[in-house]
Amino acid sequence: MDGKRYNRKIYLEDKPRQEAQAEILSAFTISPEREMVPTGGALGRITAQPVFANVSMPHYHASAMDGIAVNAEDTYEAHEQRPLHLKQGQQFVYVDTGNSIPPEFNAVIMIEHIHEVDNETIEIIEPATPWQHIRPIGEDIVQEEMLFPQGHALRPADLGALLAAGVTEVPVAKKPVISIIPTGNELVVSDAGRAPGRIIEFNGTVFANYVREWGGEPALSQIVKDDPDKIKQALLDATETSDIVVINAGSSAGSKDYTVHMIEELGTVFTHGVATRPGKPVILGQINGKIVVGVPGYPVSAYLALEWFVRPLICKYLQIPEPRRQKIEVKLGRRIVSGMGAEDFIRMNIGYVNGQFIANPLTRAAGVTMSLVRADGLLVIPASQLGYEQGETVEVELLKPLEEIKNSIVFSGSHDLTIDLLSSHLKSRETETKIVSSHVGSMAGLLAIRKGEAHVAGIHLLDPQTKEYNVSYVKKMLAGQKVVLYPFLKRKQGWIVAKGNPLGIHNAGDLARQHAEYANRQKGAGTRILFDLLLDETGLDPEQINGYDREMFSHLSVAAEVKGNEKAAGLGIFPAAKAMNLDFIPVADESYDLLMTASFFESRQGNALISVIASETFQADVGRIGGYSVVRGAVPLYF
Amino acid sequence: MDGKRYNRKIYLEDKPRQEAQAEILSAFTISPEREMVPTGGALGRITAQPVFANVSMPHYHASAMDGIAVNAEDTYEAHEQRPLHLKQGQQFVYVDTGNSIPPEFNAVIMIEHIHEVDNETIEIIEPATPWQHIRPIGEDIVQEEMLFPQGHALRPADLGALLAAGVTEVPVAKKPVISIIPTGNELVVSDAGRAPGRIIEFNGTVFANYVREWGGEPALSQIVKDDPDKIKQALLDATETSDIVVINAGSSAGSKDYTVHMIEELGTVFTHGVATRPGKPVILGQINGKIVVGVPGYPVSAYLALEWFVRPLICKYLQIPEPRRQKIEVKLGRRIVSGMGAEDFIRMNIGYVNGQFIANPLTRAAGVTMSLVRADGLLVIPASQLGYEQGETVEVELLKPLEEIKNSIVFSGSHDLTIDLLSSHLKSRETETKIVSSHVGSMAGLLAIRKGEAHVAGIHLLDPQTKEYNVSYVKKMLAGQKVVLYPFLKRKQGWIVAKGNPLGIHNAGDLARQHAEYANRQKGAGTRILFDLLLDETGLDPEQINGYDREMFSHLSVAAEVKGNEKAAGLGIFPAAKAMNLDFIPVADESYDLLMTASFFESRQGNALISVIASETFQADVGRIGGYSVVRGAVPLYF
Repeated sequence: MDGKRYNRKIYLEDKPRQEAQAEILSAFTISPEREMVPTGGALGRITAQPVFANVSMPHYHASAMDGIAVNAEDTYEAHEQRPLHLKQGQQFVYVDTGNSIPPEFNAVIMIEHIHEVDNETIEIIEPATPWQHIRPIGEDIVQEEMLFPQGHALRPADLGALLAAGVTEVPVAKKPVISIIPTGNELVVSDAGRAPGRIIEFNGTVFANYVREWGGEPALSQIVKDDPDKIKQALLDATETSDIVVINAGSSAGSKDYTVHMIEELGTVFTHGVATRPGKPVILGQINGKIVVGVPGYPVSAYLALEWFVRPLICKYLQIPEPRRQKIEVKLGRRIVSGMGAEDFIRMNIGYVNGQFIANPLTRAAGVTMSLVRADGLLVIPASQLGYEQGETVEVELLKPLEEIKNSIVFSGSHDLTIDLLSSHLKSRETETKIVSSHVGSMAGLLAIRKGEAHVAGIHLLDPQTKEYNVSYVKKMLAGQKVVLYPFLKRKQGWIVAKGNPLGIHNAGDLARQHAEYANRQKGAGTRILFDLLLDETGLDPEQINGYDREMFSHLSVAAEVKGNEKAAGLGIFPAAKAMNLDFIPVADESYDLLMTASFFESRQGNALISVIASETFQADVGRIGGYSVVRGAVPLYF
Repeated sequence: MDGKRYNRKIYLEDKPRQEAQAEILSAFTISPEREMVPTGGALGRITAQPVFANVSMPHYHASAMDGIAVNAEDTYEAHEQRPLHLKQGQQFVYVDTGNSIPPEFNAVIMIEHIHEVDNETIEIIEPATPWQHIRPIGEDIVQEEMLFPQGHALRPADLGALLAAGVTEVPVAKKPVISIIPTGNELVVSDAGRAPGRIIEFNGTVFANYVREWGGEPALSQIVKDDPDKIKQALLDATETSDIVVINAGSSAGSKDYTVHMIEELGTVFTHGVATRPGKPVILGQINGKIVVGVPGYPVSAYLALEWFVRPLICKYLQIPEPRRQKIEVKLGRRIVSGMGAEDFIRMNIGYVNGQFIANPLTRAAGVTMSLVRADGLLVIPASQLGYEQGETVEVELLKPLEEIKNSIVFSGSHDLTIDLLSSHLKSRETETKIVSSHVGSMAGLLAIRKGEAHVAGIHLLDPQTKEYNVSYVKKMLAGQKVVLYPFLKRKQGWIVAKGNPLGIHNAGDLARQHAEYANRQKGAGTRILFDLLLDETGLDPEQINGYDREMFSHLSVAAEVKGNEKAAGLGIFPAAKAMNLDFIPVADESYDLLMTASFFESRQGNALISVIASETFQADVGRIGGYSVVRGAVPLYF
């Protein structure tokens, strides 16, 4: 077959990111404008030129103590055995801290070391040395001294130094103006009604906030329709009013991806396509001397592209170095595959378990905003690298503070809605501690505990033989490891079906009969194991279930699927059905327990977790959800 | 002697800082108020409660590609050898990325993989698998999913997730209001006239900016005079309108330090004096249920006290952990002495030289704002520790980003005003590189190169025998080390005297005859060595010079001293005299050269430095200062 035959598109370039970046940086030659701002309001602003002191601090010889100013020579006779009397006015004057020292005096004696004889006379028993307890002119700041070079980001204490030096207005770099143009027929403003095919425009707002955080001034324009003339006009307008133009999206090579053609018509295109995953469909060009950056529509691609190609321009304008993220070494919990020829940017969860950092990749989908929100770190795989093996040590850039990662409880295993509640209760007690959970299913949670990749796993694994939950699995799969199984919840599993149960689902047999579109869970999920058992009991084969192979990763995902489709059905917990206003037909009462390493269970964090679970307020909050009860007076099982 | 006899004061407590902190933290029981803010404007705000998704993202099954939507079952026959035709409307519809998939279809085929036969018909040669290229409902976000727990600081990408989830307003913690009351008769607002004894009120502005940076809302009040009733009223007013009250200063134990008595009268004092240097005179109390923090007047003490006692309260209110600074291990370039019984907070310069971090203490004076501004790190010496030896490795908290420290050129030795200019020129060429200089004098600079504590030292050391500059010193003191002496400047040294030279100073003899108050430089400074030589030539003794023992640390300090005193005189460089509008009587033309390690001289940074020095623009800027010329066509001397 000739693959080209079906290809109506131009292909994107695969230009190395660094090369593309260097090109626009050298094309970006706009000199920063300066502005004077009042010093008190200059926090975080960047000095546009060296700043010099207008006055010295102190600008006079100042007393450093409460006491008396004297001429040191007058005091040389003073001795413990031979107290010396000094006369006010002639031989001393009283001074407080900060007072000016009269020119005839050159030392200060602390108030604690003088004795008042009468209103006019004091007694001292020790001589003063010249200049003692005097802050000389310019002790802190000398007039004409350079306080800051250009390119300095002003911190609170810096403002104090400026004011002390009489600099009440400071020359700072004007914030570069970055126009942001959202384009797309499918976009609606965030408060407009929702309909299938409509997408809320939120990238523009996010871009504006990134730009603000990096020190630029965003100018977010109206949404522009996918119309070549309108896009052209918007680009021209933006180059008139701003220093850098960002256009989103239409940066790919689709039939409605006009952006690249418009930039070509109006100016120059340097790059169309960089060798990265995600983030490939980027356009870098120039119109009327202004750099234009076309960023992809998918949020993760867009935010990364913005960081690669807009942040360096802002930093260049402000004359500041690009901030770099802290890096740490982590051990990989899973193998990561990467293709040659493009850099991969993998969002990672990082847990600190048993004294080491363990990292696992989150979804790579460019459309999943939450993968960036949830990520603790970013693994950048070079274009020449084919990936990494499980257990390998790699370097990741941190997206969250190291302390936050170190203080997080890594929760693995089955998804339950009470875990979020548990996390909230815990955080309001212990601000520093939070629960970071990944929903991988009971079996994977159990394995995470075995591999030392998690502190706690939520599991609800029904043993088909014993009809008991969890215990036999722990015995079999964690033999020899010191773990604790903590009885946590009794919860109801049942059929999640459309309101009014139009298909009349009451058991697995009904699913097959009604050709219901079943929303299954991923392999290793406790709910899937339960479903398989129900099929087995009914004598049904997976092939007889429509959708058996379609895997959802949480109860809420199952409920969302049913919500969108009258013919769908799923198995899950009551609160998921309730949250989406669906019907729920109970099937089983199951035990959802917490599996922990013994060392975590006995740790400070482990104690905090257990005491939250045992608290009245938490148990009451769980009760209010419905379909649940927390096991009271739980007795931990040690293995 | 009975020391108590002279003591009219109450002594401050020496309460451990951590104990004092724990007390006010447990007394601070104000629950945070919540407010709803538009999501687009919530950058940096802290969620006040868990935030859940209002809608799923996508909220419909969406096409992930441009192409056609099909029913996968209709495509199973397609094969490269047996292309399959599909009819528009019945068997497929065109979809663009983001479009909704009609309910009768369950897969998307990319536009690149279809061939249009005619207007109504397309041809495919490969079957589709169910759900391929479809973003299912909730792929990114599932309705009712918890997006953020409480206490989460919102970042740009988080705002995207909120908007995608239909959360257009977000519940955040109201910013706690922190009243700031500056007190003191000596204080004037920053734009008021200057007079001896008047101090510009700048602490309040700095406090307000710290509070803002930490997430609070500052309320800076007018300056309050040292009057018990006025202070009392200000405290009462502040407790009415704010969550935390900061009062500055009057926190010590002097005769006008009313604050502690006022707090005692109106409420409770928990602490008066913490065991820290600086920062000891702190007051912690409570009035009308509001925590009151009395901070010392000296800037460095004040800022540290604010960080110890106000930041934790703000963090507690917002339910966020206190941010911690990155720590690194450094080698001490000097011995540091610390008394028992109090923690010492030493501001440190840190240089990265020859692959190791070398740290040296800055001044410990609590009144020197610039010591905080200049500090790269903070060394906290526990109360039980007597200090550290030179060469010891200690841990310091970083006050500047690690990258910035790593990229800094450590400049030691003699002070010259062109070094600031050099730093500016360098920074505008290479944003990441800057010069960090400490003015320790030529001899100390030479020693810093010897000990591997600096990259470059500016030296102007006159050999009394040879009358040559620098070379003999380098030969003698750096024998066997690979260093480079780079000829940099010819500059004029001379007498710096009051305008009109009222004392008629033209040589060292005049100083003695006129009983001029001489402003000398510190030991090891090239200018002091020159002065000693001049004395020697004139046959004078140091004792004959008034002020010989008073040491200034820079040319500008000498000039500032002369500026403030008609009877003073000093020896220094022309631009220092010019900057302060003083007279200058030339004495000598001297060579101010740059001494570098050979490895630095040959490094990328070294090259950059030399190429700035050799540039026309830099040499022209130096020429404009006056009294200088850059050595043209300089030939580096290797040793």
